[in-house]
Amino acid sequence: MEDVISYINEHKETYIEELKNFLRIPSISTLPESKGDIRKAAEFVANKLNTAGMSRVEIFETEGHPLVYGEWLGAPGKPTVLIYGHYDVQPVDPIELWDSPPFEPEIRGTKIYARGATDDKGQMLVHIKSVEAFLKTTGSIPLNVKFIIEGEEEVGSESLETFIKNNVDLLKCDTVLISDTSLYAEGIPTLTFGLRGLQYMEVEVVGPNRDLHSGTFGGAIANPINVLAGIISKLHDKNGKITIPGFYNNVPNITKKEKENYKLLKFSEKRYAKELGVTEVYGEKGYSTVERTWARPSLDCNGIYGGFIGKGAKTVLPSKATAKISMRLVPGQEPKKISKLFINYIKKLAPKSVKVTISDLHGGYPAIVPMDAPAVQAAARAMEKAFGKKTVFIREGGSIPIVATFAKKLKVPPVLMGLGLNSENLHSPNEHFDLRHFQLGILSSAYFLKEFSL
Amino acid sequence: MEDVISYINEHKETYIEELKNFLRIPSISTLPESKGDIRKAAEFVANKLNTAGMSRVEIFETEGHPLVYGEWLGAPGKPTVLIYGHYDVQPVDPIELWDSPPFEPEIRGTKIYARGATDDKGQMLVHIKSVEAFLKTTGSIPLNVKFIIEGEEEVGSESLETFIKNNVDLLKCDTVLISDTSLYAEGIPTLTFGLRGLQYMEVEVVGPNRDLHSGTFGGAIANPINVLAGIISKLHDKNGKITIPGFYNNVPNITKKEKENYKLLKFSEKRYAKELGVTEVYGEKGYSTVERTWARPSLDCNGIYGGFIGKGAKTVLPSKATAKISMRLVPGQEPKKISKLFINYIKKLAPKSVKVTISDLHGGYPAIVPMDAPAVQAAARAMEKAFGKKTVFIREGGSIPIVATFAKKLKVPPVLMGLGLNSENLHSPNEHFDLRHFQLGILSSAYFLKEFSL
Repeated sequence: MEDVISYINEHKETYIEELKNFLRIPSISTLPESKGDIRKAAEFVANKLNTAGMSRVEIFETEGHPLVYGEWLGAPGKPTVLIYGHYDVQPVDPIELWDSPPFEPEIRGTKIYARGATDDKGQMLVHIKSVEAFLKTTGSIPLNVKFIIEGEEEVGSESLETFIKNNVDLLKCDTVLISDTSLYAEGIPTLTFGLRGLQYMEVEVVGPNRDLHSGTFGGAIANPINVLAGIISKLHDKNGKITIPGFYNNVPNITKKEKENYKLLKFSEKRYAKELGVTEVYGEKGYSTVERTWARPSLDCNGIYGGFIGKGAKTVLPSKATAKISMRLVPGQEPKKISKLFINYIKKLAPKSVKVTISDLHGGYPAIVPMDAPAVQAAARAMEKAFGKKTVFIREGGSIPIVATFAKKLKVPPVLMGLGLNSENLHSPNEHFDLRHFQLGILSSAYFLKEFSL
Repeated sequence: MEDVISYINEHKETYIEELKNFLRIPSISTLPESKGDIRKAAEFVANKLNTAGMSRVEIFETEGHPLVYGEWLGAPGKPTVLIYGHYDVQPVDPIELWDSPPFEPEIRGTKIYARGATDDKGQMLVHIKSVEAFLKTTGSIPLNVKFIIEGEEEVGSESLETFIKNNVDLLKCDTVLISDTSLYAEGIPTLTFGLRGLQYMEVEVVGPNRDLHSGTFGGAIANPINVLAGIISKLHDKNGKITIPGFYNNVPNITKKEKENYKLLKFSEKRYAKELGVTEVYGEKGYSTVERTWARPSLDCNGIYGGFIGKGAKTVLPSKATAKISMRLVPGQEPKKISKLFINYIKKLAPKSVKVTISDLHGGYPAIVPMDAPAVQAAARAMEKAFGKKTVFIREGGSIPIVATFAKKLKVPPVLMGLGLNSENLHSPNEHFDLRHFQLGILSSAYFLKEFSL
């Protein structure tokens, strides 16, 4: 084990260079024009798995973006770890708010800035490097390792969902190891035991058959923007509760034990608000910020557009307006059912004077991980060894819908070994990743491969 | 007069070619990058005034876009007509909805399609051509004529406002003749006696200091789009009344006589809704469509944007959201006062959890013209002669704020000899102008120059 740790420490700079090369590929999964770069990123991953010494590496074509599979099964009788990650990234707009170009990684202080740095390229590469360290120094890994790396995480993981269903034997394992969540705070080893699910919708309101002059027609025709705003305003009540009938059915109450556990985290709402640049937090009445983001569902407009959106003034009564609206779900809520409730409610809210089209863009299940599973306990010990501190257990507000699928189809508990930080601007300009956590992550991964083999 | 009319009829095709050349200039006043084309359009107008035989033509520089002035004062003792129009046009987006490029005029049937065709290049050119017809055939005009053509009508006419205040003597006249309104219907000679005013605002809601991951933060922070939607939804009550306190102060009741006059127009709300592709009209309760657009104020969102507006899904909790909101005003309402009421109300509606910035983009006064003024009566006779039908009197929902300034500063009644049609897509894709009205407009203008000289 000492050799492995030394190898990791000696190759620190090389690993960072490799991460930089990975980050230079603009693999934005939601843009049709990124197809070539998506392919490049998949090939980059396959290449790294080969170099690490995996005995089989394969790129599987799908209806969407390719999946990269790798395996090293040289430890018969030992457990098998399936490592999951994604090579696709979020769009970069608003591009003008980036301090350095999103696909030209730049190190400032201990942080590397680029789209995908923390979500998920940096976090995913960690595990390829720990495996490499074992194979290059000892010629073997203490247990069996499989990799499945996808390119559609940011758009709903559809192809992987299908692949898992059709390849349960290929992916057979004793746990799924995933680094795509966050540390509770800088330098604090953290395991996540709960994730919210997601249901993403688009609502389009169409009024007149063309953009109209707002002087000639203003006051006589329902304005699609005003109508859409009215609909959105009715999705929450004055206590911040979501008003969709049936939305909270099956949402479990937060247990006393969990509430007490959250209190131990000494979360500061004041510091949180200050860091985000707002004068106060805001959310569902009767819950703390931690509870609101981890254990309660939410509904947010992710985008809205309609009419004239250039500089200056244009006196137009627009033909249509569109909003992207997503809901974060907690265990107990079914994405498909929530989608139906949403559609029915919006239809009810829409006045006769406009046409409303509601599309279900994608959804994913929430997940809860049993904390006492051997893999989870091994991960807690591994992180403690790497970080030199006791591992804390948290939930996270974000969604990795595939986690629920892994758990359900492969019937194993996932280990959510997050290495990012919530403050690292994932999904926004100036995304970054702390390179100290990159290094501690590789060590944690190596310790885990050892601990879980015992 | 016969020679003049023959000249106009003989030059029909030439005039259309000239209009096409005018329409090829993309003089969009709101776009900073259009400066060169704005200049080209001003020079085009000056050039046409020279060719028509005006004795003095001058381009006046302003803080904004240039003003074109022309005069022929060869009829001492006779009245003077000041002809106003604008050479600037609206933006063209959404460009993908145009059937032919907006600055490549195309004639289909009796209509010419291009941005600015009806608003206002086609309507304005009419008067230059009628003056030309007089000067080329008889060597004189029956009265004195001045032209003032601006390039900022679509962005608030600020430079012209200042110019009028500083040049009352230069612009001295007995009436201002304007063709920038609409015919009541195809082939119906129409004079407009009322115009709504305008107050155009922009509301920006800023929440967190950066775009956030909607999973990690969703539910804990006020979402600027949701907040903006909430604000917009509170600007009307359930009866379609605007809720801004004090907004309706000084709005006069519609007189019984006017209500009866509107009934005579036999306006069909059913046909109106059908033509616009909506299942029903919508507006302030207790008023007809004609009343809502002509004699009642209105409030419309002209544009809204925030968060992710590309295709597909991005799970972002955006940092900000912006809406463009304009109000149409009726005589009695002061734009500056309305702007203040709006700002105060929005500030009151905005929750503490966000920062709201409200900007006053521009405003303009409503106007009412005395129907019995000699110029108005002469115009009614002139249109009747050209169209061969009795002239009707209407109001219009749109705003030409400069009309109020002309009336106030020059102390003369304006004549609103509209030649467009509301269905001609002004301010929207596929703007067009009926070339039969172009021709009838030139004749109306010529008859007016004669009638008002008597």
